[in-house]
Parts: sequence; structure tokens; C-alpha cells
Amino acid sequence: MRAIVLVSGGMDSLYTAAIAARECEELYFLHFNYGQHTQAKEEQSFFQIAAHYRAKEARVVDYRWLAEIGGSALTDKGVAEKLNAQKIPNTYVPFRNATMLSAAVAWAEVLSAERVYLGAMDEDSSGYPDCRAGFIEAMNRVIRLGTCAGNISIHTPVLHLTKADIVSRGSAEKIPFELSWSCYYAEDVACGTCPSCLLRLKAFQEAGIKDPIPYKERI
Amino acid sequence: MRAIVLVSGGMDSLYTAAIAARECEELYFLHFNYGQHTQAKEEQSFFQIAAHYRAKEARVVDYRWLAEIGGSALTDKGVAEKLNAQKIPNTYVPFRNATMLSAAVAWAEVLSAERVYLGAMDEDSSGYPDCRAGFIEAMNRVIRLGTCAGNISIHTPVLHLTKADIVSRGSAEKIPFELSWSCYYAEDVACGTCPSCLLRLKAFQEAGIKDPIPYKERI
Repeated sequence: MRAIVLVSGGMDSLYTAAIAARECEELYFLHFNYGQHTQAKEEQSFFQIAAHYRAKEARVVDYRWLAEIGGSALTDKGVAEKLNAQKIPNTYVPFRNATMLSAAVAWAEVLSAERVYLGAMDEDSSGYPDCRAGFIEAMNRVIRLGTCAGNISIHTPVLHLTKADIVSRGSAEKIPFELSWSCYYAEDVACGTCPSCLLRLKAFQEAGIKDPIPYKERI
Repeated sequence: MRAIVLVSGGMDSLYTAAIAARECEELYFLHFNYGQHTQAKEEQSFFQIAAHYRAKEARVVDYRWLAEIGGSALTDKGVAEKLNAQKIPNTYVPFRNATMLSAAVAWAEVLSAERVYLGAMDEDSSGYPDCRAGFIEAMNRVIRLGTCAGNISIHTPVLHLTKADIVSRGSAEKIPFELSWSCYYAEDVACGTCPSCLLRLKAFQEAGIKDPIPYKERI
């Protein structure tokens, strides 16, 4: 089976890629440059992960229009400094998963691939509406109706896992966490204090495992 | 009301823009450069139509990744020469409407716009799966579930019209058909012989109205 794997370069998509590699013979890795501040670091992780899982092709799509239309702290000036579980985080990128999934499905149709893997987690769903199971099901219906092939579907194997689950399962399976990048900044070393580093460190702490990447600072 | 209008520069999207202008106060025009052979001509029509309907903003999105992944005669080398109603035409661009609608919805969310107008016609639906009413309904469900706003919807006012309807209604309403471009080639004057020119000329003939644009050749 042939599959597209959406890989941001973070832990969730890394573990999703590991599962895709078990389930499918031919993987096509897809990454988006949507003008995020961390693009250079993410792209480096993306290509390293693609090489690790022997992707047939690794493609970076120019999606800088997403930054041009604005509306997110991930692309606008300034980075989300605070984690706020009550409201939609200002790191929300408008309709991002739909725009990226539709591009992945277009590529799947060209390649006659049957699956698109996405590392969405409903742990995030309090904040991001496009990470919920209902959204993914609705998207699968759009794909069945809107493609000629009709047999392409989205797979979200980590949807109901926690980040701590990913760390403990991934470590048991010798997933190369050292290749992944989570920090909201694009410096040589992860900051250790941004919301994304804090979530990652908390996950490793809960799993009782040491994060293999170095940090500038640890709170 | 604020609305996004997807405008390719052809007759269907021109008439859709005219309807949007009647129904909404503030229009934001959106066009895609997806590496189509006719991009320069389409963009010219797009900006002229946007000026005619006093768009608050007219934005061209760089979507050349669609040409890079391949799969369509509209972007690959060579142009569809024959009209074949039995099969999916080779001018089909994989999942195009989904990829463009999702970008339009992302922009709508940033602008707090409530509507996205699309000039899809089910006359085309024998060939293009993403022009059918069921596809549009499924897309609206994805939008309700996948956006924070939750109140954005796609409007397809010409979905059940024929091209001849568009010509006769549009002429009665003094729509500027001379600003639209339909030809699959990007020369100074429309060829008059490609499948798209033939459909346009047939529509004007059925409506008993003279097409205001010049043609190189008429069969």
C-alpha cells in the first residue's frame, strides 16, 4: 500500500510516521512551509525523519499564503508565550488541517495512494477544532465525494493517545525522538520554556523517560 | 455581510461575483495561481472583474504546488484538445475545489467573513466530482466542525444553471462578459476552437446573444 504522511517534524507526526512505516510499503512524506517561525528547524527534522523511514519522496509545499493572510501567532510577529487551555490558543492557524489535508489528498490522487496519515491528537482538541474526530470523519466524506479515486482516506493513529503515551510507546519501539523538533523558537537548542517545550518535557516526565534532545533552560 | 468570492476569470465565476455583489456589502476577491497555462490572462480578468465589483481587496494565492504534483492537462505540458463527456476530462485538477475552498475559508476566518462564493456548476459534474451539490454540502459540514467561527458557509448560486442561463440572465443584468476569459490558451485573442471556447460559444448561441469578445477562428 502507498501512503502520504504529513510530517511537521514534531513528536506526534514522528510517531505517526513510524506507524505508517509498519502499515504501508511505500511512503511519500509531505511537509508545509506556511511561513512558521520555526520552518528551517522543522524542515531539517522532516528530511531526517523521511530518510530514517526510507520515504520514496519527501516534498515541501510552499504554503506561505497562510502567513500572508495572517491570523496566527505561529506566523505573525511574536510567538505565543502563554499556554491557555480555556480559550483557542493564539497559535491556532485558521483551518490549517483542512488546507493541508486537501493538498495531501490531491497528491494522493496523483500518486494513486490510498491513505493519508496525519498526527492529529484530540488532546489538542480543546483548543484546535480541526483536530477532533468529527472533523476528520467529515473530511473523509468530502474526500469520498470529491475525488475521482474515491478510495483515499485519512488515518490518525495517534488521535486518542496522550503525548506521554507517544513517549512511552515510542521509546519502547526505539523511535528516533532526537530527530524531532517541538520548540516554538528556531534556535540551535530548544528553549525549554515555551508552551510547546513545556508540553514535550511534561510528556517525557510522565513517561519517566529522559528526552534525548538538549535544552537551553529547564524550569 | 462580508464575503470571499473565488474568481477564476471565467463566465461562471463572473456571474457568481455579480450575485455576491447584490447579496453582500463587502467583497474580498480570491484567485489562485496553480500553474495553469492561462494564468496571465485569468489574472488580468480577475483584477478587472474585482475592480468592476469594487472589491475591498483582490488577492492572488500562490498555489503552484498543484502544478508541481502534476496530474492535469491544465498544468502539465499540452492542453486538453478534445471534449469527452464520458470520462473524467484530462483537464481535471486533483481535488482542486477542496484545496481552493479550504484556503478561502482560512481567509474568511481571518476576516470574520461569513460566506464563500464559488461558481461551481453541476453541468460539469459528469466530469468533475468536486462540482456536485453533495460535495459542497459535505464541505460545509467540514467548515462548521473545523473552524472556530463555525458560521462560515459556501454559496454556489450558479450550481444548477446552464451556461446558456448564465449568458441570458447575465446579459439582461448587463454583466461585463467582455472582462471574462474562457479559452484554454493564453494568446491575445481567444482561439474559438478549444473545448472551453466551444462551450462558451455554444452557450451564447443557445441564448441567442453575441459574445462580446473577439475570436481568432470560429468553427
